[in-house]
Amino acid sequence: MPHIPLDENLPGITGLLNFRQDTALPIRQLTQILLRGESTLSEGERELIATVTSFGNQCKFCTAAHTAAADALLGEHETAEMVKHDPENAPVSHKMKQLLEVARRVQADARTVSPELVAKAREAGATDMELHDTVLIAALFCLYNKYVDGLASVTPTEPAFYDRLANILKNNGYLPSPNRYASLNETK
Amino acid sequence: MPHIPLDENLPGITGLLNFRQDTALPIRQLTQILLRGESTLSEGERELIATVTSFGNQCKFCTAAHTAAADALLGEHETAEMVKHDPENAPVSHKMKQLLEVARRVQADARTVSPELVAKAREAGATDMELHDTVLIAALFCLYNKYVDGLASVTPTEPAFYDRLANILKNNGYLPSPNRYASLNETK
Repeated sequence: MPHIPLDENLPGITGLLNFRQDTALPIRQLTQILLRGESTLSEGERELIATVTSFGNQCKFCTAAHTAAADALLGEHETAEMVKHDPENAPVSHKMKQLLEVARRVQADARTVSPELVAKAREAGATDMELHDTVLIAALFCLYNKYVDGLASVTPTEPAFYDRLANILKNNGYLPSPNRYASLNETK
Repeated sequence: MPHIPLDENLPGITGLLNFRQDTALPIRQLTQILLRGESTLSEGERELIATVTSFGNQCKFCTAAHTAAADALLGEHETAEMVKHDPENAPVSHKMKQLLEVARRVQADARTVSPELVAKAREAGATDMELHDTVLIAALFCLYNKYVDGLASVTPTEPAFYDRLANILKNNGYLPSPNRYASLNETK
């Protein structure tokens, strides 16, 4: 049960963003810029950064939601599964492997992002902006993970819930929109 | 040395917020609402939440900056020092002791914010919004701490630097403003 009264039709982060909408707006705007704005990283790659961060924080809701979002954008289920459980062999570029390791270290202890790791990422082609955005996306998902779990918001167990949420994130992005969550609790 | 090229006159978070200003704006707006907007928690109390979170993450820049901001708002140095090093005996209300413990747990592992701790906070007078804001402020400062340390931004060692920054945060808040950091590198 959540620590504060949240709309029971809006589990996970969705009820929290509805509870205090003035703070939700800049959180949504920041996420839209970082995950859907112009970037040399694809939307799927950026969702993988969100996924490994949430996985590291053991935030079940965010891990399931961004795994599903990455799957929807990449059109397959293997990559998100592998970056969580077998990152060395995940079918991502060498550059993405280094950036995902940066994200993991930001999640675990940001002081461990070493000059050596950054040099390896640069050798693999990472730019200043890609390094910046990887760190900030990982930092932002630490905010989300801690917001979701710190207030004990509800984590649906039905996998189809996350597919419905992923479709909203894929098609509409992160900004507020009317009836944004109308399809969330549909039973198909 | 920072992992990406940052203005050397803008240490810590200030250079990062300058590096990518489109992402900086919603981060600043969120901080302004949470730390300076209408609230039943004082600005000093909210800076104490930022302080204990940054201290838990061992982020030297943010800990020094928000300790100085709390000191400037509270008009003394004892409280911020005590909430970091001897929280049981810190001269804050019983309610604030519970909320600062919520913040510490959000920082360490948000899943450990227990119903028992929340019940103790409520018994001490904490409202739903105070619980919400405490969790979100702690989550936001995890974002800041990881952003600052994940990109290895510079941590000034001169204590007077943090007093100058604290005056900016006390008098001007967190939103962008022209010549915001003009006084930051002044030597008095």
